[in-house]
Order: sequence, then structure tokens, then C-alpha cells
Amino acid sequence: MGDSLDTILKAIRPLDSSAMTAARQRQDSLTKPQGSLGRLEELSIQIAGIRGQAIPELKHKAIITMAADHGVVAEGVSLYPQEVTRQMVLNFIQGGTAINVLADQIGARVIVVDMGVIGGFQPLPGLLCKTIDFGTKNMATGPAMTHRQATDALEVGIELVEVEANKGLDIIATGDMGIGNTTASSAILAAISGEQVERTTGRGAGIRDEQLAHKVEVIERALSINRPDPKDPIDVLAKVGGFEIGGLAGVILAGASQRIPVVIDGFISGAAALIATGLSPQVKDYLIAAHVSAEAGHQLLLDFVGLKPLLNLNMRLGEGTGAALGIFLAEAAVKVLGQMATFAEAGVSEAEQLQSEQGV
Amino acid sequence: MGDSLDTILKAIRPLDSSAMTAARQRQDSLTKPQGSLGRLEELSIQIAGIRGQAIPELKHKAIITMAADHGVVAEGVSLYPQEVTRQMVLNFIQGGTAINVLADQIGARVIVVDMGVIGGFQPLPGLLCKTIDFGTKNMATGPAMTHRQATDALEVGIELVEVEANKGLDIIATGDMGIGNTTASSAILAAISGEQVERTTGRGAGIRDEQLAHKVEVIERALSINRPDPKDPIDVLAKVGGFEIGGLAGVILAGASQRIPVVIDGFISGAAALIATGLSPQVKDYLIAAHVSAEAGHQLLLDFVGLKPLLNLNMRLGEGTGAALGIFLAEAAVKVLGQMATFAEAGVSEAEQLQSEQGV
Repeated sequence: MGDSLDTILKAIRPLDSSAMTAARQRQDSLTKPQGSLGRLEELSIQIAGIRGQAIPELKHKAIITMAADHGVVAEGVSLYPQEVTRQMVLNFIQGGTAINVLADQIGARVIVVDMGVIGGFQPLPGLLCKTIDFGTKNMATGPAMTHRQATDALEVGIELVEVEANKGLDIIATGDMGIGNTTASSAILAAISGEQVERTTGRGAGIRDEQLAHKVEVIERALSINRPDPKDPIDVLAKVGGFEIGGLAGVILAGASQRIPVVIDGFISGAAALIATGLSPQVKDYLIAAHVSAEAGHQLLLDFVGLKPLLNLNMRLGEGTGAALGIFLAEAAVKVLGQMATFAEAGVSEAEQLQSEQGV
Repeated sequence: MGDSLDTILKAIRPLDSSAMTAARQRQDSLTKPQGSLGRLEELSIQIAGIRGQAIPELKHKAIITMAADHGVVAEGVSLYPQEVTRQMVLNFIQGGTAINVLADQIGARVIVVDMGVIGGFQPLPGLLCKTIDFGTKNMATGPAMTHRQATDALEVGIELVEVEANKGLDIIATGDMGIGNTTASSAILAAISGEQVERTTGRGAGIRDEQLAHKVEVIERALSINRPDPKDPIDVLAKVGGFEIGGLAGVILAGASQRIPVVIDGFISGAAALIATGLSPQVKDYLIAAHVSAEAGHQLLLDFVGLKPLLNLNMRLGEGTGAALGIFLAEAAVKVLGQMATFAEAGVSEAEQLQSEQGV
């Protein structure tokens, strides 16, 4: 492990229980029946514990969208041609994608990172070039990347959060782009959970039945050739992962170490969360699962990590789109906690336990 | 029926199918796999059909929160004392409630309407006084209101939407406040659906088991004494309804007649939707069910009306809080439709059907 990864893992602490107790007490004093805002109340208390503040604020919001290519695309596992990764990075920079639209709506900045797109990019305003390599190798014939590349990818994510935190960062959403990356994510889930590949693998952008069967066979071959060690997340990342998945795992670890809530998007971000929680189980408390996607295997992944999604809108785009909606809900949660009047302030009577069934 | 109700019912038309086709075609041309934004895509197409525009915009947003008291509270069915209705109306006006916070977050105006709070109010800035009567009568001993009061309540809602539409109104959320109003809503659901009262009745603000059993018995008594005609929604509203429920039913009908999407909040707003769709089944297409609440009976109600909720966050507050979150999702949906780049604009390659399972 690199120095900064080691330091980060040691810096991850439990949530602040006194901030959570204070937030719970405040929720119960606000002018509404106790618990009546359901998961928004729970979310506000989790964020209080993450931030270490009884009344947190989420002013600075960032969506970190990482892109990379995947050598396994050579096996014919994807609906879209590989050059779409590159084209979509340019589309992010030009503001034409779904994540641009949703980030604008919630007032978040989008940080687009090239972690390893084939061909690379000339310097472009709005694009962070952190190329580990020009695409991974084909995991169906050998390791997707070296062990060093895997730790480098993690450290890019860690360092990025450090830089962004200095600009102000109260909540992070993870996002991804990479033709072939559901294949890598399914392989990671199968490797770490021990589940059968059929159960961890879905249609990605929309492949047909026979293509799905082929995708399953390719992933089984990759696992069989590489034999990733399920107890060693970096080994799994190196053998069947992707550069953007490693980068996002680093973002998640750094978010947890800096007490910044991390809103997890869909299946690929979930694979990054699997790597990160494998390296430090404590990280789980810092995660907010925005949604369960339509990609088969995502619910299984969330169950394995122990996360309960906020939304189920049949989405399966990635980029951070589900996570952007999750940031909105997180903001709603902390605004309610911070801005509502208490019973005492508003002069509203509290609940009474009725004395008789016939009323008073 | 009053003149304006009659006119409104005749003015409700089917959705605009050509706008929906154009919206569907545009969604399929945007730079994402087709259908990958799931329910956001469906929502954008529904709103296109409602507004009669291929690319609608939701600029002016209003949450209409109606308050009233309920005579049935005399039976001891509620956790909170009756004066809380009045106190919460003042809390709405002062900006201290959950709906104030969430409306501010989404940039919506909150319209607070006194439909029949006991004692009424002196003129207050920010409060619309449309008192039908100072609370309904106790439905456990006779009709909650007269037939005329029921149509008056509907017409208040209708006229309010007309006034607000003149100020600019692109989407409406419904909200409620009224101690005792889950009791009225459960009675409406049981009366119209024919379901057993045990299945339509929940804990409201949080009553205990024995209080719940008593609440069920009170509702059964109200239905047995009043014998509302399930085929006559105004009869049901009059006998076991509430003024805020009637007002919201009017809001829903007027929204549909003016081609404004109406985002339905929780159980009480759902009861209003039952009345409205009973008067005009076509109205259903204009409704967006924001969430399924934790109140028992709400899922049953949504199934009966034929609505699929967007959210399930275990909320049960009312006021329009769930609907405010629904407005956010509706805005996300139309922004994606209107603002994303197409494949052609962004120079992104479209999906290919692979020629062989071994790839290309």
C-alpha cells in the first residue's frame, strides 16, 4: 500500500455519537409527530454523526465523475462502441450530459476525471487528467492492471478529495463513465461476495439475452484465469477492476477519513464501495446509498455492503445521476433539522396520550 | 353540483398524445442508453402530455396546503389535541414547518388556506381564509357536513387554482393539516373502495394499538350511521370527509382542467384524489403520486386509484412534504428532457447491435 492510503485508512473513525444524540433530540423537538419524516430524519442524524455537528450544513457539493476504458470490451460485452467513453467525457466537459443537468439543478460542481481513457486527452478546461494507463488490459486473458496501478488509482481518488476539500466540500457524490464497466463491477461483486456470476451480472446499457450469457461466460473466465483473493480488495481491483472504480474507491476512503458524507450512485460506484469497505469496514457509516438501479446485481451488492437505498426509480445510467438526486434528499434532511421551528418556539402543543378510549 | 364544478368536469381532456410522442422521441435521442433514466423519463413524458408541450418547463411551482378541523376528534381518535390544527396554521404562516423548509429548497410558494379551522382567524398576511364552517360535525353521530358545504369546499379549491394560475402556475403540490383527518380519509377510502375499515385505517400521528382499535370502531360507526353512496363522491365527502379534503379535491380537478400536473402528497391528499377521480376518472392521468407514506391504507389507496408512487421514505407528516420532494423529481425529469444534448449534437456514437458473440 502507498503511504497516503495507509494514512487514510488509519484516519477513519467512528461516527460522532454525541452529535447524533443531539440531532435526534432536536428532531424530536421539531413541530411534527416524532419520526414522521422517516428516512429524512435518519439521514439527518447520520450526517450529523459524519460531520460531527448537531446541525450540519451542506453548502459545498461535488459530484466526482471518473472515466476509464476497459480492455474486456474486446470480448464483445458492451452495447456501445468503446469510443463512447471518450465521446462522453467531451460531452461532460461541454455540459450536455444528464449529470450536468442534475448537478446544475442541485447546485453541485461536477469534477470530471480521466482515469484512463484510451488515447488520453489534450489539456482541456474542466477535465482533470489522471491517466493511470490508456485503458485496462483484457481481464479475460490476464490481470486488468498491475498492483501498483491499482494503488495508484486509489491514491488519485484520495488526493483529489484532499484538493477539493480545501476548496470547501461538505458532501460528495460518486459517478462513473466507462464502456465495459458493468462487466468489471459484476466481476468484483462475484469475487468479493462469492456469489455466482449469473446473479451479479446484468444487461448494462441494454444487451440482449445471448449477449448477457456471453458476458457471464467472459466474467467467469476472467475470475478463473485471475483467481482474485476475495480477502484482498486491492488484488480484486487489480485483477478484474477498472481505473475509475479504483479512483472512486479512493474518493470514498478519503471522504470517510475527512468526515464528508459520500453519496453512492449505482452499480459501478457500488463496486467501488465494495473495494473501499473491504479495506475499512468503518467506511460504511459514511455512505449514503442514493438508489437501487435497474442493473441486476445492484440490490445484491447493496445488501452485501449493508446499505439501504433511498430511491428506486428504475434508473441505470451511472455518471452520478442517482447520487445527484440523493444529494437533494440529504440537503432536504439537514435543512429540516436546522430550519424547522421547535414546539416551544412555535407555541404548538405536544402529543397527549389519551386518558380513555372515549376521548377527552 | 355548482356551476363551476360542472364546467371544470367538462373541461378535463385526455393527455396530448402528440406532445408525448415528441417527448419520447427526444428522450430516445439524448446521450444516454434508451430508458436508462427510468421513471424520470416516464415522468417527463407524462408532464409533456399534461402541458401539451414536447419540452415543458416547470417554472412556477405552488404547494397548496389546506387546513381544517374535524368533529370526529371528540371521539378520541387523535394523538394530538385539536388546537394543534390552529397552532400549525400559525406555524405555516411564520415559516417554521417542514413544508416551509422544503418549499424554500425547491423554490415553490406555499399557499396556506383555512378551509374550516375551529374559531377561524383574524386577517393574517399569508393566510387565505375560505372557512366553510368552524370544523366539521362529528361523523360518528351524523354527516360531517351538508351536501352544499361539500360542493362549496370543492369550489373553493377550483377557484383558488384559477386565481393562482393567473399568477403563473406550472405544477401544483397538494398538502393538508387537520387533527383527525386520517380518520376522515380512512372512512372515505373504506366507503369508496368497499375495503374493510381495518385495512384502510392506520396510526395517524402515532396512536397505540388500543387507540387504533377504537379509531376503527369509530369509523365503522360513522359509515354505518351515514351510509355514504360509494358511487357518489360528493355524498362520501359530505358524510365522512373534511373541508380540507374537499378543497384539495377541487384543486386536483381544476389542475387537471387547466393542464397543470398535480403532485399528490400522502394519505389525506390521496383521499382527495379518490374524490376527484370518482368525479372524473380522466383526472388520474394528471396526477403524480409523490410517495407512499407510512400510514396504513395509503398503498391500498394508491392501488385503488391506479397510481405508482415515486418515493418510499417512510414519511407520514402530510402538509405537502412528500409532494415537495415529488416536485423536485418532476423538475429533474423535465430539465433532463429539455437540457441534455442529443447524440447528434454531442457527436456521440449510438448503440450497436453486436454482430457476433465474440465481439467486433
